[in-house]
Amino acid sequence: MKIAIMGSGGDAPGMNPAIKRFVEVAYEMGHEPYFIFDGLEGLIDGKIAKAIYKDVAGIIHRGGAIIGSSRSKRWYENEYRKKAFENLKEHNIDAIVVMGGDGSFRALDLFNKEFSINFVGIPTTIDNDIYGTDLCLGVDTALNVIRDAVDKIRDTASTFARAFVIETMGRECGYLAAVSAITSGAEVCVIPEVDFNKPLATKILQKEIKEGRRYILAIVAEGTKRTAEIAKWLEDDIGMETRVTVLGHIQRGGNPTVKDRMLGFGFALKALEALNAKEEGKIVVYKNGEFGVESLKDALKPYTIDPQILSMLHFLD
Amino acid sequence: MKIAIMGSGGDAPGMNPAIKRFVEVAYEMGHEPYFIFDGLEGLIDGKIAKAIYKDVAGIIHRGGAIIGSSRSKRWYENEYRKKAFENLKEHNIDAIVVMGGDGSFRALDLFNKEFSINFVGIPTTIDNDIYGTDLCLGVDTALNVIRDAVDKIRDTASTFARAFVIETMGRECGYLAAVSAITSGAEVCVIPEVDFNKPLATKILQKEIKEGRRYILAIVAEGTKRTAEIAKWLEDDIGMETRVTVLGHIQRGGNPTVKDRMLGFGFALKALEALNAKEEGKIVVYKNGEFGVESLKDALKPYTIDPQILSMLHFLD
Amino acid sequence: MKIAIMGSGGDAPGMNPAIKRFVEVAYEMGHEPYFIFDGLEGLIDGKIAKAIYKDVAGIIHRGGAIIGSSRSKRWYENEYRKKAFENLKEHNIDAIVVMGGDGSFRALDLFNKEFSINFVGIPTTIDNDIYGTDLCLGVDTALNVIRDAVDKIRDTASTFARAFVIETMGRECGYLAAVSAITSGAEVCVIPEVDFNKPLATKILQKEIKEGRRYILAIVAEGTKRTAEIAKWLEDDIGMETRVTVLGHIQRGGNPTVKDRMLGFGFALKALEALNAKEEGKIVVYKNGEFGVESLKDALKPYTIDPQILSMLHFLD
Amino acid sequence: MKIAIMGSGGDAPGMNPAIKRFVEVAYEMGHEPYFIFDGLEGLIDGKIAKAIYKDVAGIIHRGGAIIGSSRSKRWYENEYRKKAFENLKEHNIDAIVVMGGDGSFRALDLFNKEFSINFVGIPTTIDNDIYGTDLCLGVDTALNVIRDAVDKIRDTASTFARAFVIETMGRECGYLAAVSAITSGAEVCVIPEVDFNKPLATKILQKEIKEGRRYILAIVAEGTKRTAEIAKWLEDDIGMETRVTVLGHIQRGGNPTVKDRMLGFGFALKALEALNAKEEGKIVVYKNGEFGVESLKDALKPYTIDPQILSMLHFLD
Repeated sequence: MKIAIMGSGGDAPGMNPAIKRFVEVAYEMGHEPYFIFDGLEGLIDGKIAKAIYKDVAGIIHRGGAIIGSSRSKRWYENEYRKKAFENLKEHNIDAIVVMGGDGSFRALDLFNKEFSINFVGIPTTIDNDIYGTDLCLGVDTALNVIRDAVDKIRDTASTFARAFVIETMGRECGYLAAVSAITSGAEVCVIPEVDFNKPLATKILQKEIKEGRRYILAIVAEGTKRTAEIAKWLEDDIGMETRVTVLGHIQRGGNPTVKDRMLGFGFALKALEALNAKEEGKIVVYKNGEFGVESLKDALKPYTIDPQILSMLHFLD
Repeated sequence: MKIAIMGSGGDAPGMNPAIKRFVEVAYEMGHEPYFIFDGLEGLIDGKIAKAIYKDVAGIIHRGGAIIGSSRSKRWYENEYRKKAFENLKEHNIDAIVVMGGDGSFRALDLFNKEFSINFVGIPTTIDNDIYGTDLCLGVDTALNVIRDAVDKIRDTASTFARAFVIETMGRECGYLAAVSAITSGAEVCVIPEVDFNKPLATKILQKEIKEGRRYILAIVAEGTKRTAEIAKWLEDDIGMETRVTVLGHIQRGGNPTVKDRMLGFGFALKALEALNAKEEGKIVVYKNGEFGVESLKDALKPYTIDPQILSMLHFLD
Repeated sequence: MKIAIMGSGGDAPGMNPAIKRFVEVAYEMGHEPYFIFDGLEGLIDGKIAKAIYKDVAGIIHRGGAIIGSSRSKRWYENEYRKKAFENLKEHNIDAIVVMGGDGSFRALDLFNKEFSINFVGIPTTIDNDIYGTDLCLGVDTALNVIRDAVDKIRDTASTFARAFVIETMGRECGYLAAVSAITSGAEVCVIPEVDFNKPLATKILQKEIKEGRRYILAIVAEGTKRTAEIAKWLEDDIGMETRVTVLGHIQRGGNPTVKDRMLGFGFALKALEALNAKEEGKIVVYKNGEFGVESLKDALKPYTIDPQILSMLHFLD
Repeated sequence: MKIAIMGSGGDAPGMNPAIKRFVEVAYEMGHEPYFIFDGLEGLIDGKIAKAIYKDVAGIIHRGGAIIGSSRSKRWYENEYRKKAFENLKEHNIDAIVVMGGDGSFRALDLFNKEFSINFVGIPTTIDNDIYGTDLCLGVDTALNVIRDAVDKIRDTASTFARAFVIETMGRECGYLAAVSAITSGAEVCVIPEVDFNKPLATKILQKEIKEGRRYILAIVAEGTKRTAEIAKWLEDDIGMETRVTVLGHIQRGGNPTVKDRMLGFGFALKALEALNAKEEGKIVVYKNGEFGVESLKDALKPYTIDPQILSMLHFLD
C-alpha cells in the first residue's frame, strides 16, 4: 500500500516520534510511506512527497511536526476536497494516517465516504478531549510543561503574600487544568465541566489566610473564559495582590516526554496494523495501558473527566 | 488505626507526593498518620513522630523524601528488630506503609510474621524491577531525566564525528536503559537481560559510518558492568572517538513528573484502602492503568522486560 | 556590628544565595547577622531574628527568599516608621542590607535621614532598571526563563503558520523584552523606551510572508500595555492567526542561574565591606565585571537601555 | 572581503548564535561570508560553501554547531595544510574566523605565517582556559548544565546519608569545577591548580558528620584524574556510601543560555570589525564586560583561576 501521514489542527508534542515510527514500520511492512505537508491545506495544494528514512533521522526529540499542520476553511467547499482527492490519486495513495482531534477525524470520515480514501486517526491534542482514549498524543508533555511553570511560581510564592492565577489550554475540556491543579497542589481550579463554588471558596480561603496562609495558586482552564474574573475575585474579595500567567503555546512546545514518544510509537504501529487488517475509518486508542482500535462513533462519544480526578479538586459544586 | 509511613532503600521521585496524600487521606479516613524517619535504621532508633497537615505543605513538587530513607544491616540481627517492634508498640502503631523495593518488602514481611505488624508496600524504585506493577514510583521521572541528558548530548553530537556512551541505573534490570534507548533513538543498547550481538553491530555500524553516519549513541545499563568495554569497542573497533557519561544519582533527582505525582497519590490511597479492608502484607500495584493490590508472592515474581520493548532494540541476540 | 538583611518589593532569583553569603561573611567579619522577615511590613511588625548558619543551609539553589519580602503602604505613615525604628533599636541593630529596587532604596534613605539607621542597597529586580549597575540580581535567571519559554514556542512555531506574542515583565523598562527578542531571534519587539514602527513592520513582514515566512515571534514588554493591540495587529493587518502568552511570575521563579548566585555572593560581600568602611546610604553595583559602591544619587539616575542592544532590534524608530 | 567561519576542536554551546550573527553582519558590512564545514578536517577536504541567510534561520537556540567541528592529525603534515590553502584560494577566501581554543588558534597562526591567510579567533571552549578573556563561548551554558545536575542530586541528597562525587569537564583547568562547587555549595572541590588538603577535610567532615551532617557533595575536575580516589576516600575514610556521576558531554549540550547567545553575537561582530580594521592574527576577547581584540601572545598567556574564586573553596592548601 501507499500510505500517507499528515497532521491536522493544533500541533502537539509527540508527532515527530509518531512520524518517525510510521515511516520505519511502513517500510518494514512493505508499504510505501508518504508525507502530506501542512495538513488539509497542503493536501488541497498537493504538498505530497514520498518519505525516506533520512527525512526522519534526528527528529525523535523535537517538538512540533516536521510535516506541519493547519486548519482549513477551504476544505468545506466541494471543489477543494475534489482537488485533494485528485492529488492523492496522482500519487496512488490508498490511505491516510491523520494525527488530529475530533474535528479532523470527522473531516476525514466525510472525505472517505465521499471519495473512498480510507484513513486511521491518531488522537493528537493536548486538550485530551477524545472519549475513546485515556491519553491523547501530547498531553503528557503539556502537563509537564504546566507543572514546570507552576513549580517555578510556587518556589517564589511563599516569599510574598500573593495569589497567582495560571490559565491553561484545553478548549472546552478541563482535563489539563484539573490534573495540573491536583498535581501542583493548587487551592483553586476552575474548569468548564463543573461549577466552582465561589462563596464556599471565599469563606474557607479567608479563614485560612487569617490562620497564616501566605499564597494561593489558582488554575483556570481557558475554556471557562473566567481568568480575569477569578483574578479580580482573588484581589477584591480574598484580598490578595494577584498576578496572572497565561501559558499559551508554551504548553504545545518543548521536547516530547518519554511517555509521548512511546505513545507516538505505539499509535503509529497500531495505525498501520489497522490498515493491514483492512479496518475502515478507525481511531487508534490507548486504554488501560493497551493500544487498540475503535470506530469513530465509539471513540468520539462526549468526553467527561474521570470522577476520581474531579473528586480531588476543592470547592467544586 | 495508627498507621506509619516510611521509606526503605534507594529514594525515588514521587515519594513526597505519596507522603502528602497518605497524611491527608489517613485523616479523612479517621486514622492517625505517623512518620518513621530514615527507614529501617530510624525505626530501630525510634525516630517516629505523629504526622500533621503542616508537615506535608509545600512538598508536592520536591524530589527526595522528607522522611528520609536508609539501608540497614542491623535489621538482620534479632535484637534490632525487637527494638523496632518495641518502638512501634510504644506509639501503638498498627500498620506500616513502606515505600521501597523487593528487598524492603521481604524485610517487612518477615517482621510481620515475627511480630504481627501489618504492612502494605508501595513499589518505589527507579529500577522498575517489580513484577506485579507496570510502573514503580519514580520511574517516569528517572526516564525523563535520562531523556533530557541524552537530548542534550544528541543536540551536539552531530557537530562532531563521535560516539557517546551513557550509563543508566537499574541494578540487575535493563528497563531504564531499554526504554531510554528506544525513546532517544540510540543505536546501541546493552542490558543485563539479553545478549548484545557485538559482531553484528560492528558490521552494520561500520557500514553506516562509511555511508555517512556521524555519531553513535550507546545506552548501557549499569547492571551489565560493560560501560568501559563498550566505550573501548566503539573507540577501537568502530573507530570513533568515544566519550562516557555516567548519569548516577541525577536520575533519582529533580521535581517528580506529573505521572509520578499521580502514581504517588494513587498508591497512597490504595495502600490505606487495603489496610481498611484488613488486607495482610500486600503490595499495591499499577497495572493496565488501574491501581490494585497483590500478594507479596504474586507481586515479586521474577521481573522480565516486555518483549515488545526488547523487539524495538537493535543488535540483540 | 549587628547588621540585618531584608528584602523589599518584588522578589527575584538570587536572593537566597545573597542571604546565605551575607550570614557567612558577617560571622567571618565578626559581626552579628540578623534577618528582617517580610520586608518593610515585617520591620514595622517587629519580625526580626538573629540569623544562624543553620538557617541558610540548603537554600543556595532555591528561588524566592527565605526571609520573604513585601510592599508596604503603612511605611509612608510616620507612626509606622517610628515603630520600625523602635523594633531595630530593641535589637541594637546598626545597619540594614536591603535587597530591592529604586523605591526601596529611597525609602531606606529617608529612614536613615530620619532615624540614622545606616543601610546598603543590593539592586534586586528582574526589571534591570537601576542605572548604576550593569545587572541587577535576578535578571540573568529571568532572561533564561523567558528564553526557555520562547525556545519551546519556537520549536513548534514552524509546524503552523502562526504569530506568537509573548509578554514579558519589566515595568517601565524594556530591557528584559529587548534582550529576549535579540537572543531568541524575535521578529518584533515592543518596548516602552522607543517607538515601534508599525507601518514599516507591516510592509516588511507582509513581504516576507509572501516569500515564505511561516511564523512571527513578537516580544512585548508589559510596560507598553500594548500586548492585545499587537496581537490584533498581527491577526488583522499581518493576517496570521495569533496566540498570546503572558509569562507573568514564572519569570521570577526557578532555581537561580550560576550568574545570579555569583552576583548574590558578590553583592553580599561588597555590602558588608561597605559597612565596614563606614559608607553611608550606598548602593552596591556590578559594572564592567567588577563589584563597586555608589551613592544613591549616582546609582539611581534615569535608566536607559544600552544603544547597542537597541540597534539589534528591528522596526524601531 | 570573502570571509569564512569555522569551528575547531571541541564544540561549545553558543557557536550557532555566533555563526548566525557572523553571516548577518558580514552581509551588512558588504563582505561575502563562507562556511568551512567540519573544522580543519573539512578545510583539508575542501568542504567550503558560501553562506546565505537561509542557512542560519532557526538555529539561534540550538546547541552544537551547524557547520560541525573536528580535531585533525593530518593538519600537522605539510601536504594537507597546502591542500587547505589551495581550497581557500579556489574560493578566493581572504580570512578565517575560527571558533576554538588555544590549540586551534596556534594552528591557524602558523598557517597564516606559512600561507598568509589572515584569521581572527573566537575563544570557544567550555574549559574557560584562555587567559585573555573573562569568559569563553559556551562556559555559561556548561556551568548551568552542571548546576542543574547538582541541584537534582542535592534535592534528594538529604533523603539519604550519602556522599556524591560529580566529575566535571575542563581538561587541565579547574574553572568549571571551582565555580560549580561555589555556586552549588559543595563541601569538597578538587581541581588541578591547587592541592586539596585531604587530612584537614577528613578531620572537619568527620566532625560535621558527628554533629549531624547528612550528605557531602564533592565536585572533581576531570583534569585531576582523582574521581575514583576521592570516591574511595569518602567511602572508606569519611565513612559514607558514595555515588559517582560523570557528567561528560551533557556539559557541552543544551540550548545556549542568554549570556552565551549575547557572547556569540558580540564575538562575531568584534571578529568582523577586527578584519575590517586589518588586524592580523588576533583573538577577540570579553573582559570586564567589554569586547576587545588581543594579540595571540597576550591572549594565550598561561591561565590561572581568579584568586577570589579559589578563596571561596574549602580545604585547599
